[in-house]
Amino acid sequence: METGQLEAFAKQYKQLLESNLRSLVGKLDAPAIIKESMIYSLEAGGKRIRPLLVFATIDAFGMDPKKGLSAAAAIEMIHTYSLIHDDLPSMDNDDLRRGKPTNHKVFGDAVATLAGDALLTYSFEVLGNIPNDSITAETRLKLIVEMAKAAGTEGMVGGQVADMEGEGKSLTLQELEYIHIHKTGKLLGFSVLAGALIAGANQSQIESLSAFAHHLGLAFQIQDDILDVVGNEQEIGKPVGSDTTNSKSTYPKLLSLDGAKASLREQTHRAKENLAKTGLNTTLLMEITDLVASRNH
Amino acid sequence: METGQLEAFAKQYKQLLESNLRSLVGKLDAPAIIKESMIYSLEAGGKRIRPLLVFATIDAFGMDPKKGLSAAAAIEMIHTYSLIHDDLPSMDNDDLRRGKPTNHKVFGDAVATLAGDALLTYSFEVLGNIPNDSITAETRLKLIVEMAKAAGTEGMVGGQVADMEGEGKSLTLQELEYIHIHKTGKLLGFSVLAGALIAGANQSQIESLSAFAHHLGLAFQIQDDILDVVGNEQEIGKPVGSDTTNSKSTYPKLLSLDGAKASLREQTHRAKENLAKTGLNTTLLMEITDLVASRNH
Repeated sequence: METGQLEAFAKQYKQLLESNLRSLVGKLDAPAIIKESMIYSLEAGGKRIRPLLVFATIDAFGMDPKKGLSAAAAIEMIHTYSLIHDDLPSMDNDDLRRGKPTNHKVFGDAVATLAGDALLTYSFEVLGNIPNDSITAETRLKLIVEMAKAAGTEGMVGGQVADMEGEGKSLTLQELEYIHIHKTGKLLGFSVLAGALIAGANQSQIESLSAFAHHLGLAFQIQDDILDVVGNEQEIGKPVGSDTTNSKSTYPKLLSLDGAKASLREQTHRAKENLAKTGLNTTLLMEITDLVASRNH
Repeated sequence: METGQLEAFAKQYKQLLESNLRSLVGKLDAPAIIKESMIYSLEAGGKRIRPLLVFATIDAFGMDPKKGLSAAAAIEMIHTYSLIHDDLPSMDNDDLRRGKPTNHKVFGDAVATLAGDALLTYSFEVLGNIPNDSITAETRLKLIVEMAKAAGTEGMVGGQVADMEGEGKSLTLQELEYIHIHKTGKLLGFSVLAGALIAGANQSQIESLSAFAHHLGLAFQIQDDILDVVGNEQEIGKPVGSDTTNSKSTYPKLLSLDGAKASLREQTHRAKENLAKTGLNTTLLMEITDLVASRNH
């Protein structure tokens, strides 16, 4: 890929992903309402940053990104289930997500809970069903175990619990990083790892790519916090400053806005530094890093 | 195994299972509260009928039941997650389960939701991590895919949705069976299938064992409905007649109490008939069938 081609790449693979997600849910032999609820949230849009990381990582190895389609779909299902459950009245109690009514506002709390459960469950079936001629059974098992780790108590769920426990408290920078590394970082990291495993990366490439993903995840979260201070309500689809209202610990609060911006530059730099170590054609991954650091929603 | 040895067998493998579950959750590097919440519900007891089916099926092949330990633990995690989510205020809103406060009454709705999510996620990691020298990678993948099917929209979650949609309506016998076959039957069926796959069953054995599990699942549910009419509140740990109060469709309502008892005998007979076809030493599975049909809680 040449520089500046991320936009076309993202458009192409977003379409492929979204059509795959529709088809995967569409073919289920299940009550209509649960399929509608799953598809409603899968189609709610978003940047599809995790699938894009899968595709772009495979592309960096000079391989066909389509090989990552099932993994990308599985990861987006996990991400979507987490949003549905996070939005529930018993959790964050959000009525809007990306400017649309949240799943439970449309389908009710019970169906929303089950749609989340169903997406989480299905994600493992989708990974398990990757055809044998594409990647080995051993690699598929590794993907399944690593996705479970990234999504479970040692990853996303653990981060969510720590986030809830930290509510209303003044957190240290270390505590804040624990939350973000787990709540969002682990699944972002798995997206890159999945691409690397599918592309047949060696151990040293996996290490550099994992370090890249770690810093990218932190950059992602710092920018999220910065946007919450300076963002535009219409663009991010939720009330600006809502984290501040909930007296939530954020990077700008702990580091000042300028300090948070400096930290964002630092994380972005270290992400790219690790990319450079891989010896791969990481143009797209570099562009994704810039996109994450400079996005306005 | 000789006739009448189910009790000792069940006791031995329940202990093994429960110690395995504690150890699997105990070793997680995660916030204490989520581990406590997971263990609270895993240790809430119950008949452990699904793990017992895994162990007894492997035993029928003359193999060491311990080979099924990871699968049994994974299935019990799925079953436990489904109970935690079913009990939530947005679902059945139950305060008691087996005579103990439900998970959300102890840990709150948010942690209970996440503990369910965590158990569901971890179950796939546990299956994926079965050592290679025990069963092949292909068989582990088959277990993962089949467990996801049994637990997802084409299985348990689909049955739960149909159950919710049927609430307050008069269901036909066919609609009632759809609910039970999916809500409880599929995971019971997977328990037997898991044992068969781990033991290396041939196709004809898998078919007979699947038919056995299908009829066993229906027998289980019919007896559940009968107990709800004639049971003892203290013994089953929830208010007797609660299904009737909720104007829920049940077998005794659709078939009369005597009709439901006749149907129970019929399902038990067909379950055993299919067991006999396998040519295996199914003494324990026969005893489990009798236990399911005659249990008083």
